[in-house]
Amino acid sequence: MDIQIGRGKTARRAYGFDEIALVPGQRTLDPSLADTRWRIGGIERDIPIIASAMDGVVDVKMAVRLSQLGAMGVLNLEGIQTRYADPEPILDRIASVGTSEYVPLMQELYAEPIKPELIEQRIQEIKSQGGIAAVSATPVAAAKYGEVIAKAGADLLFIQATVVSTAHLSPDSVTPLDLAQFCQEMPIPVILGNCVTYEVALNLMKAGAAAVLVGIGPGAACTSRGVLGVGVPQATAVADCAAARDDYYHETGNYVPVIADGGLITGGDICKCIACGADGVMIGSPFARAKEAPGRGFHWGMATPSPVLPRGTRIRVGTTGTLEQILVGPAQLDDGTHNLLGALKTSMGTLGAKNIKDMQQVEVVIAPSLLTEGKVYQKAQQLGMGK
Amino acid sequence: MDIQIGRGKTARRAYGFDEIALVPGQRTLDPSLADTRWRIGGIERDIPIIASAMDGVVDVKMAVRLSQLGAMGVLNLEGIQTRYADPEPILDRIASVGTSEYVPLMQELYAEPIKPELIEQRIQEIKSQGGIAAVSATPVAAAKYGEVIAKAGADLLFIQATVVSTAHLSPDSVTPLDLAQFCQEMPIPVILGNCVTYEVALNLMKAGAAAVLVGIGPGAACTSRGVLGVGVPQATAVADCAAARDDYYHETGNYVPVIADGGLITGGDICKCIACGADGVMIGSPFARAKEAPGRGFHWGMATPSPVLPRGTRIRVGTTGTLEQILVGPAQLDDGTHNLLGALKTSMGTLGAKNIKDMQQVEVVIAPSLLTEGKVYQKAQQLGMGK
Amino acid sequence: MDIQIGRGKTARRAYGFDEIALVPGQRTLDPSLADTRWRIGGIERDIPIIASAMDGVVDVKMAVRLSQLGAMGVLNLEGIQTRYADPEPILDRIASVGTSEYVPLMQELYAEPIKPELIEQRIQEIKSQGGIAAVSATPVAAAKYGEVIAKAGADLLFIQATVVSTAHLSPDSVTPLDLAQFCQEMPIPVILGNCVTYEVALNLMKAGAAAVLVGIGPGAACTSRGVLGVGVPQATAVADCAAARDDYYHETGNYVPVIADGGLITGGDICKCIACGADGVMIGSPFARAKEAPGRGFHWGMATPSPVLPRGTRIRVGTTGTLEQILVGPAQLDDGTHNLLGALKTSMGTLGAKNIKDMQQVEVVIAPSLLTEGKVYQKAQQLGMGK
Amino acid sequence: MDIQIGRGKTARRAYGFDEIALVPGQRTLDPSLADTRWRIGGIERDIPIIASAMDGVVDVKMAVRLSQLGAMGVLNLEGIQTRYADPEPILDRIASVGTSEYVPLMQELYAEPIKPELIEQRIQEIKSQGGIAAVSATPVAAAKYGEVIAKAGADLLFIQATVVSTAHLSPDSVTPLDLAQFCQEMPIPVILGNCVTYEVALNLMKAGAAAVLVGIGPGAACTSRGVLGVGVPQATAVADCAAARDDYYHETGNYVPVIADGGLITGGDICKCIACGADGVMIGSPFARAKEAPGRGFHWGMATPSPVLPRGTRIRVGTTGTLEQILVGPAQLDDGTHNLLGALKTSMGTLGAKNIKDMQQVEVVIAPSLLTEGKVYQKAQQLGMGK
Repeated sequence: MDIQIGRGKTARRAYGFDEIALVPGQRTLDPSLADTRWRIGGIERDIPIIASAMDGVVDVKMAVRLSQLGAMGVLNLEGIQTRYADPEPILDRIASVGTSEYVPLMQELYAEPIKPELIEQRIQEIKSQGGIAAVSATPVAAAKYGEVIAKAGADLLFIQATVVSTAHLSPDSVTPLDLAQFCQEMPIPVILGNCVTYEVALNLMKAGAAAVLVGIGPGAACTSRGVLGVGVPQATAVADCAAARDDYYHETGNYVPVIADGGLITGGDICKCIACGADGVMIGSPFARAKEAPGRGFHWGMATPSPVLPRGTRIRVGTTGTLEQILVGPAQLDDGTHNLLGALKTSMGTLGAKNIKDMQQVEVVIAPSLLTEGKVYQKAQQLGMGK
Repeated sequence: MDIQIGRGKTARRAYGFDEIALVPGQRTLDPSLADTRWRIGGIERDIPIIASAMDGVVDVKMAVRLSQLGAMGVLNLEGIQTRYADPEPILDRIASVGTSEYVPLMQELYAEPIKPELIEQRIQEIKSQGGIAAVSATPVAAAKYGEVIAKAGADLLFIQATVVSTAHLSPDSVTPLDLAQFCQEMPIPVILGNCVTYEVALNLMKAGAAAVLVGIGPGAACTSRGVLGVGVPQATAVADCAAARDDYYHETGNYVPVIADGGLITGGDICKCIACGADGVMIGSPFARAKEAPGRGFHWGMATPSPVLPRGTRIRVGTTGTLEQILVGPAQLDDGTHNLLGALKTSMGTLGAKNIKDMQQVEVVIAPSLLTEGKVYQKAQQLGMGK
Repeated sequence: MDIQIGRGKTARRAYGFDEIALVPGQRTLDPSLADTRWRIGGIERDIPIIASAMDGVVDVKMAVRLSQLGAMGVLNLEGIQTRYADPEPILDRIASVGTSEYVPLMQELYAEPIKPELIEQRIQEIKSQGGIAAVSATPVAAAKYGEVIAKAGADLLFIQATVVSTAHLSPDSVTPLDLAQFCQEMPIPVILGNCVTYEVALNLMKAGAAAVLVGIGPGAACTSRGVLGVGVPQATAVADCAAARDDYYHETGNYVPVIADGGLITGGDICKCIACGADGVMIGSPFARAKEAPGRGFHWGMATPSPVLPRGTRIRVGTTGTLEQILVGPAQLDDGTHNLLGALKTSMGTLGAKNIKDMQQVEVVIAPSLLTEGKVYQKAQQLGMGK
Repeated sequence: MDIQIGRGKTARRAYGFDEIALVPGQRTLDPSLADTRWRIGGIERDIPIIASAMDGVVDVKMAVRLSQLGAMGVLNLEGIQTRYADPEPILDRIASVGTSEYVPLMQELYAEPIKPELIEQRIQEIKSQGGIAAVSATPVAAAKYGEVIAKAGADLLFIQATVVSTAHLSPDSVTPLDLAQFCQEMPIPVILGNCVTYEVALNLMKAGAAAVLVGIGPGAACTSRGVLGVGVPQATAVADCAAARDDYYHETGNYVPVIADGGLITGGDICKCIACGADGVMIGSPFARAKEAPGRGFHWGMATPSPVLPRGTRIRVGTTGTLEQILVGPAQLDDGTHNLLGALKTSMGTLGAKNIKDMQQVEVVIAPSLLTEGKVYQKAQQLGMGK
């Protein structure tokens, strides 16, 4: 499998979603018969889609609405929502600032300290409206606020860092979070991520993860690959981590879902993700385009506010419809960004997949959607630029 | 042949037409000696090109004119032509609406019911003017209107869905169309599609298809790959299905032509298609550019009107010449979109192919026409942007 | 070596110049020591570069000037120069017409008959000014005007068609040119082309070719691949035909040079061409940019005037310097399009190649110059579009 | 490993940095624990980054400032700084001239002779301000000014040519520089480059190089590949030369660092470079964007001034921050061009690499960052061009 980069280095070829497509088999299915249910941390959901813990994507209102629609949203506990009692004027400022002032503004806004009482308040706001209170924290914040989170009644805790490992080396002055111990002591299910390899996914499962998040470097608002050189294309990362899940399940009988996180924009991306082995997906930018989204038509990465090395670009995604249209339709756009559930069900019908486990087995081909001359020609036609 | 995407998933590399080119052999031929005749459902045609069953491409007038020129057009029986007694003002509206109002308008226009009497009338209009009445329907409509179609005197029936299979699972409330039974009972030849694999093509042939349509996801007005993640690049799909045709022929003595459908724009694309094994091609956008085309310079996919998940973009293709110029020349454009028959004959001459069967055997190379720096440079020069 | 496109079809991967680069070895050389001489049809030249037989590139004046500078130009005997006694106003019209009127104008202009007396006159004009009279004709014209050409005192005759073979099938009414017989009977050396495969190159050498032209489909002003689907990337085509030359030489002791024709724009392209095995190159668009070029800043393919299937786009290449600057420098541009000889000598020095035969042996790597994100970034910077 | 280009030619696939990415392992590390120290020619530096010997990048002031910050800059001894006592007005002219006058101006400015007393003066200016006096010269200039350089108290001498070899053939009138003899006789460490292969890197080490520069053709301001066809993508070149270093070390016990030079723009590029085996990197354009850079927002290649074959494009890189921000942060840009050291340390932490030797061993995947349709879509969104 190894390809020689040079005499001193070999590497494996990894694939992204833009490089694959799904192949219909001998069976088709009416989309209404496609069963998209899944379970995470003991909670069953109708739609295997989670909204990312990003400040432009999920606030209390979004978390509640997503729960009502059969999906779920994760609230970022280290963002605007827990630093400011009234986040609205802050979000207004982020949306109105120019490109050159953006990074300094974010560095300033995120310098405001996190308030434990706001953590509690946001969780209770979601719960009181009947929503699923899924929240996220970095390892450092999880150690600090774990108790508050649990007490406030959160349903699920996502511990997320760009890259997470069970063997983190910290300076002597700092006691690193022991993920295994934390998972054991925490009274609610803990989801861990992000990872991209079989070995780390397996380690996280062994540490007690209720689910594992997969994806480093592929997201629209993430510039990890440019800044750090780090990243694995998602099709390969998901397939590897799904293999870890299956092996772990065969050994222990414990099924730990794999959630693909980052780089997914269209319904087609979600379908391909599951076909590579994911149980669910976490998406940001598609939901940032909802009328209800806190980002006001903008989307930004959570590494942005770093005071020394910001690396999440703000993207103007625009507002294209209601959350309902985006998630369950009916679609008013024909580009794959509306009615994500409908797209998944139609794809499953087309591919003859009755449920998510079936969908994980469908045939895949490597078929790069590169920009060929022919496609540029088509695009030109599409834009009315035909000769 | 299998490439590992990740530990849990392998895939095969599939190729599109943009990635291949044809190699001249040791023999050349005067283009006038190239014989392009073929047969479908007992009907012999001089030109192996069929106009797609799309509302912007084929109406009664186009079907008749295409027949006269030696080709054929398929009339969509679930579109504007059978929903409206006078389709002209409807087509005017589609052509005049802005991009943002397009999807809702289409959803509205296609909500108008199909009228059986218009099905009958359109078929008879084509027949009375001496045209070949080839018509298309989805499996559901074929079940419903099959009898009307046959009685009205249609010559060929195309049953088309994005993906068709002989093992379709429907909700209990619906009796799915049994394709084998339908083909047997229908008094006229039935063409089935679309498929992309050897197995499904073989199943459709066994079910009694008079020809098989190949192509999922590649068309200009089709966004299946973005919305559903589904699709196989055409060179691979055509070669696979052509192998099914040859195996079926060797077993049964019954030769079922393979028609490549979707993603073909230039004469070169048509030539490459046949070189990969197709007997004929079905094309939409090149004909949508004809003065006679009902689309008035626009072209749109038939999945567009879906009330819940529209996925066929409207493309402004412009009007570049008469149908005659586009099909048999003389060409007034030098980009491969005029005189498609001349291009095919010249290519056959260049490659030394006396007939379609010869053309199916010519040598192919993998030669991606990717946008390299050099090509961008050339393009820039072409546009007068040389430094 | 064969890759499966689909079950019914295998293909070989072919490479273009944009996909390769040259690797320096353990030896370097002062460029002044690089010997670029070569021989074609008994004529020795200092520079292995020939100007294409295209109406925008070579007229009498260009042919003479190229000869003086150590290179050579080929006059197209079926173009403007032999149809019109005074070509200047005709060339003015071609340069001044708009894009939409271009194809019809060319079809009209090239309908004017060829005059044998102008063939004679042009050859004598070149000879009387001390130039090498290299001329080109299609097989049909070669049969018709061969005697005139020889009598007029031409030095070399290039017989060129998009694709040439020694086994051409014509309608009964036409006697095809027997290339072997023609080469034998013609009192001057005959160069044959174009071809792209080992077998055809070998056949042409056996037929008596004094040199073989290699290249189908790759040129800037050529749209063969789009219109006909036909073409082989140049690096592969050149290497294959060079192998035929070497095998033929080993068998017969007769060294028949291989000339790469088409798709070459920069000095780097020329260097890569020779590194793949070419003895010389034929280029069009770089010379079309000379002040002295008849095209007045335009360049067009010779298949353009076809009355039924035009397929050579007109490109505005602009005028960037004198022929001397372009061919032997000094350069005033830093993009590889000025001082082509200097580029070749510098490249040979860098690669330690003392002469053309050495240069044919240098190491090559496959290194696609695809448009990656990084390169787009660089380009953006170059254009002053840095963030 | 060899791929057939054609019958007469095989080649190896080489990889560039745009085609690879780094894979996190089972261990992570707090970035503050990442040790980035390295040694070159007996000098220890905290940061393994060297500023290129280019006139738009390093002058005396930059060399001093880079030394203070823990890095190093190399002063070009054949540029503006040693031809003009007061370089400032000259640099102003270069920055203010238009694109078309640029090449002739450079040819004129670099025709001014080099003054040995300015070589001495510049070195002493750096030393007197506490900087490391690293200087560069071509082989010819090194032979001529070697003694002056040593006497003036330079710390390191870089001998650089596009391609350097230990077996250079010169005209009889010229005595070529014997690199081995020169390294032996020179009282200060001599760094040699550039090379791209295992064999040449090994030869340079045997000749006594204190370090080896790797990189031909990949730089932003370098057009060698277009003009000469010469170049090897950096990931492969670095890995090959690093293998030579390791083999040479195992044989002799002498560790000769490998410095990647050219084509590096972001922090991610630097990280990937070291992961392929480099000990340090030499970068130009990122530093040309510093407020302190002599280029005033421009960057140009040192082959530009060639009187006969200029081949280094001037790029407007803009001015984006102070040298400190670019090198050690804090960053005000999120695109990987600010805080290069922070990016390296964060990447090392993410990858669990405690030091440069660890970083050279991290896992690499082949993951082309090609411009796919999906990425164009993302980019369009980023630019606010979402539908």
